[in-house]
Amino acid sequence: MKKIINNPNNVVSECLKGMELAHPGLKYIPGFEVISRREKTTGKVGVISGGGSGHEPAHAGYVGHGMLDAAIAGNMFSSPGPDRILEGIKEADSGAGVLMIIKNYSGDIMNFEMAGDMAGMEDIAVENVVVRDDVAVPDSTYSTGRRGISGTVFVHKIAGAAAWSGKTLNEVKAAAQKACDNSRSMGMAMTPCTLPAVGKPGFDLGENEVEIGMGIHGEPGVERTTPKTAKETAEILLGKILNDMDFSGSEVALIVNGLGGTPLMELYILNNEVQHLLEEKGVKVHKTFVGNFMTAIEMAGCSVSLLKLDDELKMLLDAPCNTPAFKV
Amino acid sequence: MKKIINNPNNVVSECLKGMELAHPGLKYIPGFEVISRREKTTGKVGVISGGGSGHEPAHAGYVGHGMLDAAIAGNMFSSPGPDRILEGIKEADSGAGVLMIIKNYSGDIMNFEMAGDMAGMEDIAVENVVVRDDVAVPDSTYSTGRRGISGTVFVHKIAGAAAWSGKTLNEVKAAAQKACDNSRSMGMAMTPCTLPAVGKPGFDLGENEVEIGMGIHGEPGVERTTPKTAKETAEILLGKILNDMDFSGSEVALIVNGLGGTPLMELYILNNEVQHLLEEKGVKVHKTFVGNFMTAIEMAGCSVSLLKLDDELKMLLDAPCNTPAFKV
Repeated sequence: MKKIINNPNNVVSECLKGMELAHPGLKYIPGFEVISRREKTTGKVGVISGGGSGHEPAHAGYVGHGMLDAAIAGNMFSSPGPDRILEGIKEADSGAGVLMIIKNYSGDIMNFEMAGDMAGMEDIAVENVVVRDDVAVPDSTYSTGRRGISGTVFVHKIAGAAAWSGKTLNEVKAAAQKACDNSRSMGMAMTPCTLPAVGKPGFDLGENEVEIGMGIHGEPGVERTTPKTAKETAEILLGKILNDMDFSGSEVALIVNGLGGTPLMELYILNNEVQHLLEEKGVKVHKTFVGNFMTAIEMAGCSVSLLKLDDELKMLLDAPCNTPAFKV
Repeated sequence: MKKIINNPNNVVSECLKGMELAHPGLKYIPGFEVISRREKTTGKVGVISGGGSGHEPAHAGYVGHGMLDAAIAGNMFSSPGPDRILEGIKEADSGAGVLMIIKNYSGDIMNFEMAGDMAGMEDIAVENVVVRDDVAVPDSTYSTGRRGISGTVFVHKIAGAAAWSGKTLNEVKAAAQKACDNSRSMGMAMTPCTLPAVGKPGFDLGENEVEIGMGIHGEPGVERTTPKTAKETAEILLGKILNDMDFSGSEVALIVNGLGGTPLMELYILNNEVQHLLEEKGVKVHKTFVGNFMTAIEMAGCSVSLLKLDDELKMLLDAPCNTPAFKV
């Protein structure tokens, strides 16, 4: 295992310290593994997210003006406990309540909901939405129902913009729920990834093998097959997405996401194919984001996410935001 | 070889098409493999850069308001010809002349200078600066003198901001030259990379081996050694940089750069170490940039770049800019 780390047990805290030192607007809260906005905005609904580490820049990279108020990091690929999440809720609360954006993994659901209850006992109003954008499989290793993957970034953006526009907790939740309902994603993995504390890949993918629909923790997808061209990859991923939801005639936002080890060049080549295919299918792309947004450590591979826009979502998507990993 | 591509011979053009489709402010000029700003600004000095492909987001990702006016892409790891560069110069010229930022590789120097001469014959004033920030080795496979690597991004930013502030060609060149003079970088590679048309890694690095000071095309560095911790990596890379130039008591800008296959988490862990070491050495970090800025396809590894700031460089660094890969 060759990684730029010190002690495998300290990767999360050292990463978050490194983020705080790189971005003066972020505050790191040791022990709780929370990154929050240093500047507080009174009376605004707080928006938080989080989950297992290893998906950087998710989620701490989305903390900042116009997006999240705090992100809570668990250990590598494992959910943060309720105590950590409660700390994130308190950091984000300024009297108007807090919306939690949860990716649909059983551990996250359990821990975020428990933290929400604990916050309720301290008279903080907490609501949540659950992201289930991954159309690959109906249930998965760590989830009942669809998994949450790169489409989560859309939900962060929409909920963040709604909160920054002064909406109430219920209004922010409604906007975030609409973003959840309108998001669909699908991924493809080409190499495994290695947890630092384990020191070897969590599974094997042969030299001539890729897995369609693999999860961001290496959970099983739809099928193992031979490597595909960029055009075929676009057809397979978009095919499944467009089959699941009718996007024709719609305007969408598009994320072409890298899983950590795939060069930007390949993501742009994939984007070229995705855009042509969407045009053919009568789907109009309003805004495109290409890069590493929701990763699986150093896994090579990609995912594609679509968000169907209406006037409200378009306005919220286009609202300015300034975070380490997402700027509009 | 598992890559998200179609035909290995078309990776550059398809990548640039994918960039144009993702970023409406960018215009792709097929055949010449130039990305330029769609909007033209009359009377401003044009700033261009370019070089072999495979270093994405360099250089096309730095085209936009406040930075480059055009970027010229060569084939993978090989310099663009003078005809392509001339096209880039013409795209960038709006009557006030054009500054070319050249990384110090023999092919780039020859082709950019030839293109500059050709532009001169068409009455376009052209000047250039050459970036030689890599302190690893005095000469290298493709360079006489030091190589240009991730510090080039500083030169793009400084020259771009100077041009956008309305300075003359000679003034923009002087600011860019100061950025070149004040930049130092050093890298470390952990895995090789694979050119799409070759289909196998260009060299080997053993399971228990890394190379200190390797170039961004896999050119030899200083030594092959066993994998280092993040702390040791910071000490080795910064040690060589601080030994080469006296930064003590200075304010600097810092880039912690990934070579393409290294997860963001590891770059932030490295940043944590770099920041502590700089503080120990009495170097004050004014701004930090962590991410993939100058890559070597999917190589795992990193480089660290410092730019020594004075009042002028600080102002130019802090000036707003908005490009796909760099936003201030």
